[in-house]
Amino acid sequence: MRLTEAIARIAPPDAAAEAEAQKRLDSLTKPQGSLGRLEELARRVAAIQGVVPPRVGRKRIFVFAADHGVTAEGVSAYPQAVTAQMTYNFLSGGAAINALARAFGVDLEVVDAGVAHDFLPDKNLRALKIRPGTDNFARGPAMSRADAETSVDAGIRCVEDAAADEKPFLFGVGEMGIGNTTSAAAILCALTGAAPHEAAGSGAGVDAAGWARKVAAIERGLAINRPDPKDAIDVLAKVGGFEIGAMAGAIVGAAALRIPLVLDGFIAGAAALLARGLCPGVIDFLFAAHLSAEKGHRALLHELGLVPLLDLGMRLGEGTGACLAMGIIEAAVKLMREMATFESAGITGKNA
Amino acid sequence: MRLTEAIARIAPPDAAAEAEAQKRLDSLTKPQGSLGRLEELARRVAAIQGVVPPRVGRKRIFVFAADHGVTAEGVSAYPQAVTAQMTYNFLSGGAAINALARAFGVDLEVVDAGVAHDFLPDKNLRALKIRPGTDNFARGPAMSRADAETSVDAGIRCVEDAAADEKPFLFGVGEMGIGNTTSAAAILCALTGAAPHEAAGSGAGVDAAGWARKVAAIERGLAINRPDPKDAIDVLAKVGGFEIGAMAGAIVGAAALRIPLVLDGFIAGAAALLARGLCPGVIDFLFAAHLSAEKGHRALLHELGLVPLLDLGMRLGEGTGACLAMGIIEAAVKLMREMATFESAGITGKNA
Repeated sequence: MRLTEAIARIAPPDAAAEAEAQKRLDSLTKPQGSLGRLEELARRVAAIQGVVPPRVGRKRIFVFAADHGVTAEGVSAYPQAVTAQMTYNFLSGGAAINALARAFGVDLEVVDAGVAHDFLPDKNLRALKIRPGTDNFARGPAMSRADAETSVDAGIRCVEDAAADEKPFLFGVGEMGIGNTTSAAAILCALTGAAPHEAAGSGAGVDAAGWARKVAAIERGLAINRPDPKDAIDVLAKVGGFEIGAMAGAIVGAAALRIPLVLDGFIAGAAALLARGLCPGVIDFLFAAHLSAEKGHRALLHELGLVPLLDLGMRLGEGTGACLAMGIIEAAVKLMREMATFESAGITGKNA
Repeated sequence: MRLTEAIARIAPPDAAAEAEAQKRLDSLTKPQGSLGRLEELARRVAAIQGVVPPRVGRKRIFVFAADHGVTAEGVSAYPQAVTAQMTYNFLSGGAAINALARAFGVDLEVVDAGVAHDFLPDKNLRALKIRPGTDNFARGPAMSRADAETSVDAGIRCVEDAAADEKPFLFGVGEMGIGNTTSAAAILCALTGAAPHEAAGSGAGVDAAGWARKVAAIERGLAINRPDPKDAIDVLAKVGGFEIGAMAGAIVGAAALRIPLVLDGFIAGAAALLARGLCPGVIDFLFAAHLSAEKGHRALLHELGLVPLLDLGMRLGEGTGACLAMGIIEAAVKLMREMATFESAGITGKNA
């Protein structure tokens, strides 16, 4: 399945299943609506799967890693080498996302979408490197249009392969890439017209001078490259990243496969903006895990029309927020599957 | 362990352990502070246990059930019989809290603290009935001072027994009792001076006329009984409930045992206000699971000085919010236990 094929397969969620799901929720032994947003979650998953109650099953987070040429502008708190070092940390199980994935029973797939490092073959690292890092978008395009398309296809391939045997219940996307909040902020600006100083946050903790360089790099990148807001692939090529393209592909692919996908934070959100540019219908298959502490995230989620489930001041990425939210979404579906009805439990209804 | 003994054992959390926990958090492979409130959770659990990293282990939610004489005033959306019916539902595993407890690996202890129904002996129902329901507090005190003390002791006994063999990692408290949002709102008014029309919400879904009766019942209950805000046992006796007294006891007992306790929603919050009246130090051992949709909850949490972890529009009780939050708190502790350090993973630190 490639991009055009995936887009062609995307159809809206099943409205009849959604209505039936609400009816079932209202028959369960609780005051109507008293599970709040958990009801919305179960109902939306039912609509996406087209089944009431929805099935549960394997949960999988893709962590896409890649490097960014724009780090040459001094926009990051950490050196570029940390992307590869953290990728090794994912492989040895010592990162935050590893601990959370174990805690919530989530499968982890680590994907090299473009890290500036030669990894030895490792069965736990999926090798889909487009190139060893993007070019510096403050000096020219981050990548060619062909590479942008390849990165999107890589993400589609990941979700498609993961769904080949047993259809997963839930996907999540997260990332690792020193410099990628700069790229994500540039995408937000390019697609929505936001001002760089409003879209750019402090990422992994850059200081005030670094933040000023970050804003300047985004301003220059937009001025030099003139990304076309009507062409998501152009925006990705001009100011994006390989892991961001792969996440956008995973989002489109999940929608084509009718598998709900949980966005992590700011960078995954930028990928969702790109995916929406490729196919507006993907939004109905997405869940926003959390409101990150990264400055531009609130505006980004507002633009996507998604209300985050959690607000815990997190700003780590890697899929950490997505992982927590997947635990809540799974619980919501289990409520719909397992609760007794007023009738089956012999419970008196509301006073007339 | 009885109330006076429990109070005598309560000492502040371990400040040295908390500082050591923060130091450890700062050594882990993530930008400092990037796990947001998850770091606060892990740090607070470390301070309560006095161990870094904190240990994990069994999680247990107590669901205290009891009836309320004030239902005679027409304050509830459901008839009183539903308290016993839902208790049976807990025992057969069909309620929301059963599904969530299974999903998050939480042990459930269902306690009859005062349901107006004779249950046959059942190994899954802890029989600590004080009396079959309180008296109508709109006409006189809900219970005697002696019964109020007995209900608090019942809660202490539950947590103490649960900690007898292996020390649990985390406790949660929830409840079932038709009419108990009326009692909880009255407690909030009595202890904080809040106005009944501000403290009373729509509970399980009472209509506007029922809400007006609820406000009137609280006003009358406060006027007739004149609960003494300086005497938590007096407030409990005048306008409280047996399950609320038991939750207050569980809160005091957990603090004495140095086990973190997660509050569910509005009614558990009212129990926490009472527990704080008994011993202000209990607050340091409490976690607020969520902001419920029940009207007075925001003011109640503000009064307690607790910031809820979740805001999902839930208003069901039973410990459902607590259960979700326990999953997050456990994950936070696992992060501290399992993550690699910058040193152990060979990762370069921040740019100078």
